[in-house]
Amino acid sequence: MGLLIKNGTIVSSTAEYQADLLIEDEKIKEIAVNIPEGDHEVVDAAGKYIFPGGVDEHVHMGPFDSYGFETSHAALVGGTTTIVDFAPQDQGDTVINSFHRHKDEKAKGIASPDFSFHGMVMDTSEALLDEIPKMVENGIVNLKFFMAYNGTPFHVEDDLIFKAMQICKDYGITPWVHCENGDMIEVLKEEAVKNGVTKPIGHYLSSPPTVEDEAVQRLIYLAKLADCPVFIVHNTTEGACENIKRAQDQGQPVYGETCTHYLTIDTSFLEKENFEGAKWVCGPAIRPKEHLEAVWKAVKDGTLMGIGSDHAACVGGFEKAKKRGIDDFTKIPNGVPGMQDRLNMVWTQGVEKGRINRQDFVRLCMENPAKVCGIYPQKGALLPGSDADVLIWDPNYEGTISVENSYEGTDYNTFEGFPQKGIADKVFLRGHLMAERGKLVGEKGQGQYVKPQPYTVCYSNYHQKKAE
Amino acid sequence: MGLLIKNGTIVSSTAEYQADLLIEDEKIKEIAVNIPEGDHEVVDAAGKYIFPGGVDEHVHMGPFDSYGFETSHAALVGGTTTIVDFAPQDQGDTVINSFHRHKDEKAKGIASPDFSFHGMVMDTSEALLDEIPKMVENGIVNLKFFMAYNGTPFHVEDDLIFKAMQICKDYGITPWVHCENGDMIEVLKEEAVKNGVTKPIGHYLSSPPTVEDEAVQRLIYLAKLADCPVFIVHNTTEGACENIKRAQDQGQPVYGETCTHYLTIDTSFLEKENFEGAKWVCGPAIRPKEHLEAVWKAVKDGTLMGIGSDHAACVGGFEKAKKRGIDDFTKIPNGVPGMQDRLNMVWTQGVEKGRINRQDFVRLCMENPAKVCGIYPQKGALLPGSDADVLIWDPNYEGTISVENSYEGTDYNTFEGFPQKGIADKVFLRGHLMAERGKLVGEKGQGQYVKPQPYTVCYSNYHQKKAE
Amino acid sequence: MGLLIKNGTIVSSTAEYQADLLIEDEKIKEIAVNIPEGDHEVVDAAGKYIFPGGVDEHVHMGPFDSYGFETSHAALVGGTTTIVDFAPQDQGDTVINSFHRHKDEKAKGIASPDFSFHGMVMDTSEALLDEIPKMVENGIVNLKFFMAYNGTPFHVEDDLIFKAMQICKDYGITPWVHCENGDMIEVLKEEAVKNGVTKPIGHYLSSPPTVEDEAVQRLIYLAKLADCPVFIVHNTTEGACENIKRAQDQGQPVYGETCTHYLTIDTSFLEKENFEGAKWVCGPAIRPKEHLEAVWKAVKDGTLMGIGSDHAACVGGFEKAKKRGIDDFTKIPNGVPGMQDRLNMVWTQGVEKGRINRQDFVRLCMENPAKVCGIYPQKGALLPGSDADVLIWDPNYEGTISVENSYEGTDYNTFEGFPQKGIADKVFLRGHLMAERGKLVGEKGQGQYVKPQPYTVCYSNYHQKKAE
Amino acid sequence: MGLLIKNGTIVSSTAEYQADLLIEDEKIKEIAVNIPEGDHEVVDAAGKYIFPGGVDEHVHMGPFDSYGFETSHAALVGGTTTIVDFAPQDQGDTVINSFHRHKDEKAKGIASPDFSFHGMVMDTSEALLDEIPKMVENGIVNLKFFMAYNGTPFHVEDDLIFKAMQICKDYGITPWVHCENGDMIEVLKEEAVKNGVTKPIGHYLSSPPTVEDEAVQRLIYLAKLADCPVFIVHNTTEGACENIKRAQDQGQPVYGETCTHYLTIDTSFLEKENFEGAKWVCGPAIRPKEHLEAVWKAVKDGTLMGIGSDHAACVGGFEKAKKRGIDDFTKIPNGVPGMQDRLNMVWTQGVEKGRINRQDFVRLCMENPAKVCGIYPQKGALLPGSDADVLIWDPNYEGTISVENSYEGTDYNTFEGFPQKGIADKVFLRGHLMAERGKLVGEKGQGQYVKPQPYTVCYSNYHQKKAE
Repeated sequence: MGLLIKNGTIVSSTAEYQADLLIEDEKIKEIAVNIPEGDHEVVDAAGKYIFPGGVDEHVHMGPFDSYGFETSHAALVGGTTTIVDFAPQDQGDTVINSFHRHKDEKAKGIASPDFSFHGMVMDTSEALLDEIPKMVENGIVNLKFFMAYNGTPFHVEDDLIFKAMQICKDYGITPWVHCENGDMIEVLKEEAVKNGVTKPIGHYLSSPPTVEDEAVQRLIYLAKLADCPVFIVHNTTEGACENIKRAQDQGQPVYGETCTHYLTIDTSFLEKENFEGAKWVCGPAIRPKEHLEAVWKAVKDGTLMGIGSDHAACVGGFEKAKKRGIDDFTKIPNGVPGMQDRLNMVWTQGVEKGRINRQDFVRLCMENPAKVCGIYPQKGALLPGSDADVLIWDPNYEGTISVENSYEGTDYNTFEGFPQKGIADKVFLRGHLMAERGKLVGEKGQGQYVKPQPYTVCYSNYHQKKAE
Repeated sequence: MGLLIKNGTIVSSTAEYQADLLIEDEKIKEIAVNIPEGDHEVVDAAGKYIFPGGVDEHVHMGPFDSYGFETSHAALVGGTTTIVDFAPQDQGDTVINSFHRHKDEKAKGIASPDFSFHGMVMDTSEALLDEIPKMVENGIVNLKFFMAYNGTPFHVEDDLIFKAMQICKDYGITPWVHCENGDMIEVLKEEAVKNGVTKPIGHYLSSPPTVEDEAVQRLIYLAKLADCPVFIVHNTTEGACENIKRAQDQGQPVYGETCTHYLTIDTSFLEKENFEGAKWVCGPAIRPKEHLEAVWKAVKDGTLMGIGSDHAACVGGFEKAKKRGIDDFTKIPNGVPGMQDRLNMVWTQGVEKGRINRQDFVRLCMENPAKVCGIYPQKGALLPGSDADVLIWDPNYEGTISVENSYEGTDYNTFEGFPQKGIADKVFLRGHLMAERGKLVGEKGQGQYVKPQPYTVCYSNYHQKKAE
Repeated sequence: MGLLIKNGTIVSSTAEYQADLLIEDEKIKEIAVNIPEGDHEVVDAAGKYIFPGGVDEHVHMGPFDSYGFETSHAALVGGTTTIVDFAPQDQGDTVINSFHRHKDEKAKGIASPDFSFHGMVMDTSEALLDEIPKMVENGIVNLKFFMAYNGTPFHVEDDLIFKAMQICKDYGITPWVHCENGDMIEVLKEEAVKNGVTKPIGHYLSSPPTVEDEAVQRLIYLAKLADCPVFIVHNTTEGACENIKRAQDQGQPVYGETCTHYLTIDTSFLEKENFEGAKWVCGPAIRPKEHLEAVWKAVKDGTLMGIGSDHAACVGGFEKAKKRGIDDFTKIPNGVPGMQDRLNMVWTQGVEKGRINRQDFVRLCMENPAKVCGIYPQKGALLPGSDADVLIWDPNYEGTISVENSYEGTDYNTFEGFPQKGIADKVFLRGHLMAERGKLVGEKGQGQYVKPQPYTVCYSNYHQKKAE
Repeated sequence: MGLLIKNGTIVSSTAEYQADLLIEDEKIKEIAVNIPEGDHEVVDAAGKYIFPGGVDEHVHMGPFDSYGFETSHAALVGGTTTIVDFAPQDQGDTVINSFHRHKDEKAKGIASPDFSFHGMVMDTSEALLDEIPKMVENGIVNLKFFMAYNGTPFHVEDDLIFKAMQICKDYGITPWVHCENGDMIEVLKEEAVKNGVTKPIGHYLSSPPTVEDEAVQRLIYLAKLADCPVFIVHNTTEGACENIKRAQDQGQPVYGETCTHYLTIDTSFLEKENFEGAKWVCGPAIRPKEHLEAVWKAVKDGTLMGIGSDHAACVGGFEKAKKRGIDDFTKIPNGVPGMQDRLNMVWTQGVEKGRINRQDFVRLCMENPAKVCGIYPQKGALLPGSDADVLIWDPNYEGTISVENSYEGTDYNTFEGFPQKGIADKVFLRGHLMAERGKLVGEKGQGQYVKPQPYTVCYSNYHQKKAE
């Protein structure tokens, strides 16, 4: 006896078709035309779209004063059934040990959606190079590096990134890199402060588009020299997208994502009165309007592969956290919440506005995120044998995004007041109904860890031989 | 009781997965993990790939002294279950009438694979403009125009193409255009003859890459002015691909294909002794080596959407047809056979050499050809409800391509002597086994007509609103 | 005893320096620091710039109902000492005969500035090809072709242009081509009329930027195939400039100019009320604002080599000529006057606004025009031995351009109301003072014919060997 | 009574013309047609070209174990009358003090050609920022920074370069930057050594093209952020040239040069047997052949403005200096001699081979080098009032370049065995005959210091207003 979803329109990144879905034992058992109801529990999806559950390849759960997996059910409510977090390296310990500690202590038994992790380098000794060969068996197939944040444990110098890349490629590990020129940001920040800038817009002024464009291009060159695929996180500028596209046109395996807010929030938000702009202080900084359209173009034409949330919800929210920087923008904690409304925003601003179509929606929010995380087709696909993560989407809903409906734990919503068309009508995690029309209906803490495979899609075209 | 294909690896343009396929009533009934054998006829596909049957969007069956549908089973033997022919307009009659006559008299009851048609303009009066609005209901969603072949009924002047485009876009019809500058070819041909050139290489010398590059770019401008999507057939040059890519980068809906021989045969073939070069005289002309790699890049990166055969097998073959031009290259009849070995060549030269991967193979030879012809997902997909056209592919076969194994009816094989890796192990047309390992095993003449839908994929991104 | 110009700042395309100029026998005799006054007639140019007299490479004097050489002193008043006209081929006669007739009957003894001619093809039989080899000795080194104006004697088909190019290159003749897609213009014009468009803006609507972009690119391909340098006249669009630049970047000898009004007049002028827009009807059509900046960029960065006037002043002007089209824009005669104010406009809108500098001014309005016409350094340069055409420029003048000060013979000024900074303080033609501060002071009809040299600068980089 | 040069063909970057040159008091007094001989000393230049004396914008005289100004007459022998050296900052002292010390102690009274200096930063404290405003009055208008050479006093970090640029732009000072990624070079060098590479080719392997491409692009971004013009020295790669061109196309004031050996010597030289390859070890490294053609294209089309020698002749030459690295390529001292044969090589490999023409020769080797050094038109031009540095060039000479004819002081010639067409027939420095046909005939040590002007040509187009 299984769960049978009938009469919906199944949507993948390449097709739309009418068929029924049968779920048994947490897996998709069967896809067929007109499956007999038998003794199955039947869900009628007539007039609705059936998507794979959302996959968010970029969330921050917990470290550094942001809310952790105890709020992760917010993802489910928005239709996202798998989130991929960055496991921060603890100072003085290895990436691998830190990875397991974070996974076992912070996520297991607490997470509500299924979850996976990227490694994240934060102790920049060359000891790193020795543990890379052991990462894959431990479940690390993407390794995060920060070119920015000089003077903090996040920052990694170019030469270590380069040396790491030379090893990563032999193990099918993809460096995921935050590209901003940290040196320039430090100089510009200092100058802004010296010039008396205190308000949130100072954050943008001291990390303008050029510091991102430069670091993206530099990374591309380092990767070329190391002959290693790379994935660039949260691209926000026209220049970054152009640099990536140029490299791709020349056959270099360079990939990337952007995030919801870089498609929908512009610098006018940073200039809102009463310090409200601080709500949108995050890294990289929010960009002027013309960049938003350039980034939409890049997700549409495939230059960028996915749209993550970069969810990082400061404990204390606006009133208790962001306001620490009320007299000095450099003290505003970084990060915006966004895990819950990612699909709402991409659908409403993307599909409904004709910037992308439904196939693109699945490609950008489900399929490619799973592929770059090495968890496809277990996740991100509606195929026989895949996990039964199913999102039934009602395109006819109309509402408004608001913190009132938010499960993210903070006191404001990044997308407050934006219109919402369409809604996650029913969200199944491995066949279990977890959320309905904006409300959590399942039990928290049932999320399971998903172990990724190396040689992700970033390797597929360029190192095909090696991968096989 | 159906046909059950078990244990294979199903491959689509985005995924590979283990599942079983159940076929009933000529359709794909069910895709599921481990379908019980019951009383089904079972085919074991262990160790093999399961692809949708090949779709060849570009064949010429019959008109102008080439072999017709009586040889179309050659496609099936090579793994192609659907072919799309160009229905030539009869002088003095309408495109629509000619279309039906060709379909009903030349194809029905004779064709072995399933088949569909593009319209093809050959009587260039403005009467054309009046019948365009009625084409869709008659089954014409792609309309072929020739910019080349001045002085023959094929040639259409720019202003008529432009006027037609202005109407086509309102009905979801896509102009398919052969882009070569006919004026220049005439001048160059005349000059070559005057200079004493008689051998087959004269064909290349009088239709060099620049005449194609120019016409492609001109068409792109005409389409931009008319605001109409276009599909450019058989692109063969680096310049053509660059021009298409530049238009796409600027957001213009310009699409195209190439053909097997433009990826695999270079001008050295034209220079073979004893007039043998004549075997590869076709339009556009075969290109120098460097263009072949540029075209591979364009199919890999998505600039070009498909690989057709442009099959046109001269009645009489080399000895009785091509040799008519033995003293004068301008008298060599145009066209190469290629319907049977398209998949063999693309797999061996593409997938096996690492230029494309298996997903690309499905995208380029099955899925996109069906999409641009308006017959997806009935054809080109393994989805519940799709026609049960299934190609079981054995990647372990090794052999050599030869006319000895050819069903194309001519006395030479375009790809004679090329290695062949992999083979169409079993080819099912709507669930009926038609071919096995290079041999026809089904009955000829069982092919059915497939009526296409307008607003094909060429409209999807750019005229989305209109299409819905 | 000569004429000695002292204390000015001599400006060339590469340098500015203080020196004195001595003129004897209509030539520049000497350039030196502090030439003793002796018994020379002395002109004090302190505080002023000394430029070579202006060279206008693109004027129409006389044919087709526009004013002829009897108004050519207007050029002198504006600082232009040499004009290069297009000698129209008479129907049924050769280019060469027509050239001499036009030169001898329309210009000699009438022209006020010095003058030269381009040949202009208007009888499109292949007889043209036979006379090309004799053109150089007759003084024809640039040969004008029109791709537009279908249905008139101006229009030349691509194949004849191509054949002509194949011969031109052997004699150092440069094809000068008006690039617009005549076929498209005819279709669009017909459609506009059918849609009830009657006003002057219809001229723009039926010859939009794309028809120019296309023809420019087509010509570039034809020239590539013929391996012949080409010069494209009056480029007006961003696309045309991009196409030329791309060809240059690939090493193809493609050159071009723009004209004053394409840098300064936009489509808002065409929409002026009371039919006033007709004043700016010319071919190609005036463009929207964004194109103007793109063309400024192209003259600045060297993509385009010169700025001509394309002066063509309709006999009857606005009231008696342009108004013939008051009910039908297709009947408005083409052409704008502009010979007199070319330097005023380029200086005021270019140099004074910082879009170009003084070196660019000399390069674009004097030096390169002379080079592309094969009359450098006799004209366009202040070098010992050059003709003593000297323009003393007072940069401190401020005024307003108006038909009241115009010598062009028509009842309106293309640039009416535009500010004018700087003025031609003194204009010497071969050492004779012809104009002072906007007034003619010399005698009319003293202009002399200048015979050009073949293998102009358009050949210099690419066919250097051949030219020597 | 002056020196009168008669009957030659004067060549500038824009013109060639027959005229006589009169020199008085070390200056060009007069340029005129047929100057009477009077009591002048007459030089007959019939059949010869008259160029401005060569200007070499990039030489190293003396510091770091290379030969100093005592060998600078080698430049004169080759036709170069002005050299511009880099004055190295002494550790612990200011750039300005070091500049004067170098000028007064190392050059004055010793130098044979005229000379000027760039500042060169080698003590990277922020004290630098305080002295920039005083540099111009001291004669420093170009300021050299090294992005490479980590771990030596040469290396400057990005943030200091950026801060310096923000100040330089207000004073018209142009940063001149050696762009190579020093971090990557260190890693690669270490890896090469670890892998057992000892031979000279190791130098290339550890500083491949990508490390230059990256640093060039990074500098361009830094300059964009600082809104400051920059000049990039010794560009050697296709990528560097593309990056500069792209910036220029976007309107950014980015300029650069290349050097003789990067146009003529390829990596095959580095692989010569018996350690001979060490002769061509210099920074950046010599490149593979395809880059040489790309750099020729860049000098031809204006992407790069000049061709310097980067002359640095190791004391001890090959036997006593280069051989220090015979067992370890990292110990080979950097630098190649080249001051004497720069014009010979550029003429023979450039003009004679049709890659550039005579105008380009003057532009690249005389005029632009003077302009970027702020010493035009005192140097680099044949204009009334300019210094009488005159190079009479005999194009008919044929010979072979050899150390036997070399005045550079070292035991090998970088261009040994290359053919030489054309020769510096007579070289005048401020009117004094210094060299004739490869032999020094004047007295050494007569060179004078030339003080430059700020806001060089690098500022002219983009900061025009500011410069005036």
